[in-house]
Amino acid sequence: MVKNAIGRYIPEEIENIGKLNPYAGSFNCKPTVTKISPKVTPVFPGENKLLKDIKEAIYKTGLKDGMTISFHHHFRNGDYIVNMILEVISELGIRDLTIAPSSLTDIHRPIIQHIKDGVVKRIETSGVRGDLAEEISKGILNTPIIIRSHGGRARAIESGELHIDVAFLGVPSCDDYGNANGFSGKTICGSLGYAKVDAAYADKVVLITDNLVKYPNLPASIPQTQVDYVVEVSSIGDEKGIMSGATRFTKNPRELLIAEYTAKVIEKSGYFKDGFSIQSGSGGASLAVARFLRDKMIEKNIKADFALGGITGQFVDMHEEGLIRNLFDTQSFDLRAAESIGKNKAHFEIDASFYANPHNKGCAVNKLDIVILSALEIDTDFNVNVITGSDGIIRGASGGHCDTAAGAKLAIIVTPLIRGRIPTVVDKVNTVITPGETVDILITDRGIAINPLRKDLIERFKNEDLPLFTIEQLKEKAESITGKPDPIEYTDKIVGLVEYRDGTIIDVIRQIK
Amino acid sequence: MVKNAIGRYIPEEIENIGKLNPYAGSFNCKPTVTKISPKVTPVFPGENKLLKDIKEAIYKTGLKDGMTISFHHHFRNGDYIVNMILEVISELGIRDLTIAPSSLTDIHRPIIQHIKDGVVKRIETSGVRGDLAEEISKGILNTPIIIRSHGGRARAIESGELHIDVAFLGVPSCDDYGNANGFSGKTICGSLGYAKVDAAYADKVVLITDNLVKYPNLPASIPQTQVDYVVEVSSIGDEKGIMSGATRFTKNPRELLIAEYTAKVIEKSGYFKDGFSIQSGSGGASLAVARFLRDKMIEKNIKADFALGGITGQFVDMHEEGLIRNLFDTQSFDLRAAESIGKNKAHFEIDASFYANPHNKGCAVNKLDIVILSALEIDTDFNVNVITGSDGIIRGASGGHCDTAAGAKLAIIVTPLIRGRIPTVVDKVNTVITPGETVDILITDRGIAINPLRKDLIERFKNEDLPLFTIEQLKEKAESITGKPDPIEYTDKIVGLVEYRDGTIIDVIRQIK
Repeated sequence: MVKNAIGRYIPEEIENIGKLNPYAGSFNCKPTVTKISPKVTPVFPGENKLLKDIKEAIYKTGLKDGMTISFHHHFRNGDYIVNMILEVISELGIRDLTIAPSSLTDIHRPIIQHIKDGVVKRIETSGVRGDLAEEISKGILNTPIIIRSHGGRARAIESGELHIDVAFLGVPSCDDYGNANGFSGKTICGSLGYAKVDAAYADKVVLITDNLVKYPNLPASIPQTQVDYVVEVSSIGDEKGIMSGATRFTKNPRELLIAEYTAKVIEKSGYFKDGFSIQSGSGGASLAVARFLRDKMIEKNIKADFALGGITGQFVDMHEEGLIRNLFDTQSFDLRAAESIGKNKAHFEIDASFYANPHNKGCAVNKLDIVILSALEIDTDFNVNVITGSDGIIRGASGGHCDTAAGAKLAIIVTPLIRGRIPTVVDKVNTVITPGETVDILITDRGIAINPLRKDLIERFKNEDLPLFTIEQLKEKAESITGKPDPIEYTDKIVGLVEYRDGTIIDVIRQIK
Repeated sequence: MVKNAIGRYIPEEIENIGKLNPYAGSFNCKPTVTKISPKVTPVFPGENKLLKDIKEAIYKTGLKDGMTISFHHHFRNGDYIVNMILEVISELGIRDLTIAPSSLTDIHRPIIQHIKDGVVKRIETSGVRGDLAEEISKGILNTPIIIRSHGGRARAIESGELHIDVAFLGVPSCDDYGNANGFSGKTICGSLGYAKVDAAYADKVVLITDNLVKYPNLPASIPQTQVDYVVEVSSIGDEKGIMSGATRFTKNPRELLIAEYTAKVIEKSGYFKDGFSIQSGSGGASLAVARFLRDKMIEKNIKADFALGGITGQFVDMHEEGLIRNLFDTQSFDLRAAESIGKNKAHFEIDASFYANPHNKGCAVNKLDIVILSALEIDTDFNVNVITGSDGIIRGASGGHCDTAAGAKLAIIVTPLIRGRIPTVVDKVNTVITPGETVDILITDRGIAINPLRKDLIERFKNEDLPLFTIEQLKEKAESITGKPDPIEYTDKIVGLVEYRDGTIIDVIRQIK
């Protein structure tokens, strides 16, 4: 075990994974990267890519025991693809696979059985939820899962650390030669930003669609030149699950208070001026912030140059009102956003590498002024946990959290100070996803703490009418109400490795007792 | 020397280049290709890409003696970039470079001096014209130039055979982070289809623009994630040279006759039906064919699914009229086309790999029904020369000639039977660019010959009112008028290697006496 730059103990090596590099600081690792590329089997004139079913596709890709397959999570909890593919793979008797979806969710519960059957041996993902997550936390896998951020996954794929043998990608519309997009069809998801990276780098790419259209289906998010096979199925997903309540307007007074503080912090931060850029989530507080900001933008005649990341219908409204000039969309959070991408000229689909890969020649988060991020926990070093719950069980996703925090000039964490009678501000978070040195301000319903590294912000805000505290004071405030929670009991077994976006290991997740 | 599949003698090895693979048939070579990728130096938040001048850019890229640099030819004879960069490189004392532009033209005459000075040691290009071409034909370089098709160049770059250390790419509009396009600015060229490949695969990418715009300049033909540096200069090219008379309507009766025959051949070929696809050049006969076809399309209510390749204003008109549903544009031949690409939703910019790389998972030429191509010479095996003149001197470009002939279901060669008192149909062409097995029909002003390999077409056309001959008959017809021309006298020295699109050597060009 070695201690990394934020004091977490990281094993030097893990069986089946290899040597690990401990986290050394958010911008400490700047290698010259030689990207890898896929092994391509050329397609000549007259050859046919359209296959009769999934089984034929799996057969043709040459999928074998021990290989790595990938999926995207643009269908969120409405995804049919992962279960559909794994079921056929299981029938075919292929075993010991590593699955590397861009994320996993409740609907992927059947993976538990595939693990028990030996079909799935390892998992690399941004996040995992529900029963599968609980089983993983309890130690169902012999090898730890690898948790990556969206930018980190793109980096790992492009660098060859995550080599994908076969990508199985569900697409809402596709022609018989593989030109696909996400904004037309009967099951739309909008941006295919995560899938684009898999298509570009996997050796074999199989597209699965329920909406086969005439050639050429352009503009193509995934182009024919990257696609080996196309399979038509009756349904790729459930629209209700894809779009389920991702975005809602809050009436919760705590969330509204946090949003009010946040809007004020942004307004007074020095970054709120014409041409600013912003990323914000789809949680209640984030949406409320955007609503308050909208009023201030109109009042002061300030327009944003771009909004980034997961795009919500709310941002689409502000774009159509002329308040946000461009939308950079790596994931469309709701139907309004999904439809807009095929319609609004300045609503741009971007891939996860363009979005946040720290090892390309300048990803979009580098140009971000303000990001509003949530937290399950934050500690007095400003380290943030968005992956494990207060019971130590995995229940979230790394997402773009650490990517945007690192890129943005102002990274704001919003969270209630106490959640379900448990403090969110703690001495040490269970699991670090985002290192404190990249976090600038914590905003809770009971007070605001500025990272001491940002002396400029402390100076700027000292005379503002805001409830400012040190983060230690906030922690004490929380504990004074709830008491100090009992520590979670873990075994020694490591069930998850948390990779920082640059490929170093920032933390490990242990088996719960 | 070994004899290749069309009977041309190819050396087994060339100093400074290495072992050569002789051409073995148009679809004989189907390797599993592992693409290479660039060495990327990551750009972190806050880093600046905008440099003060070319000299600083060259210095920052680490350009050294013996490296390979590349350019694109979207500015055609109005290009300022190649000469501008080489002048600074020459001043800096850097020597022995390989230059690998996508093509070269008259305006690049100053390269002659750079060769004499030892700055330029080798050239790899699609074509070369004017004084520089003449000097090359006379043997100014010690190592043969390599001629590649547009698809072949993309293949060579992606496979690593043509490794680009630094790409210097002129762009009509660009922001300070490297998002660039070709359709806005004061010196527009439309599609940046060739440049896109260089940007994706060169280790270092420098964009040069005379129109620096606000971030983000999207949609970007070249994205920020591929760009190291941006330099602003006063002018990147001369609009007159960029757009100079590329397209014109012919009044030449011979060209009109050829066009009339061609339109009729297409109409009766079996490929002229709703949803067909076509590529056609910017020469007089080609434009006239499109004009005749337009009438037939309206008459029969037939619409094309796409037009491919170099796009002309004429195709834009037909697109806007609803006659061609989609335009796939790798190079915009005139101002009308260049403007359309930023405006018409179904006018798509495609890169040279999507266009014609035989070793990706299915390039666009694979889906092409009909292509109309020109020839300097064609021989009785239907092999076509578009690179060397009747004096043996280089005066043309490989372009997409062999790519589209290989991909299209119907490859038509149009040429006058006699040009400048010299027959175009000959026993053996000086230089083979496109192998006869991929050519289907020759149409001249004095008769039409169908490739005997296409028995189906011979059968189909036998009762049509068309002047059909064997190609040997056409050759004799020509010679009966002009006499048999004297053979060109060459030395043994090889001044050029002609690569077929798959990387094999289809022919060599020798030094003229």
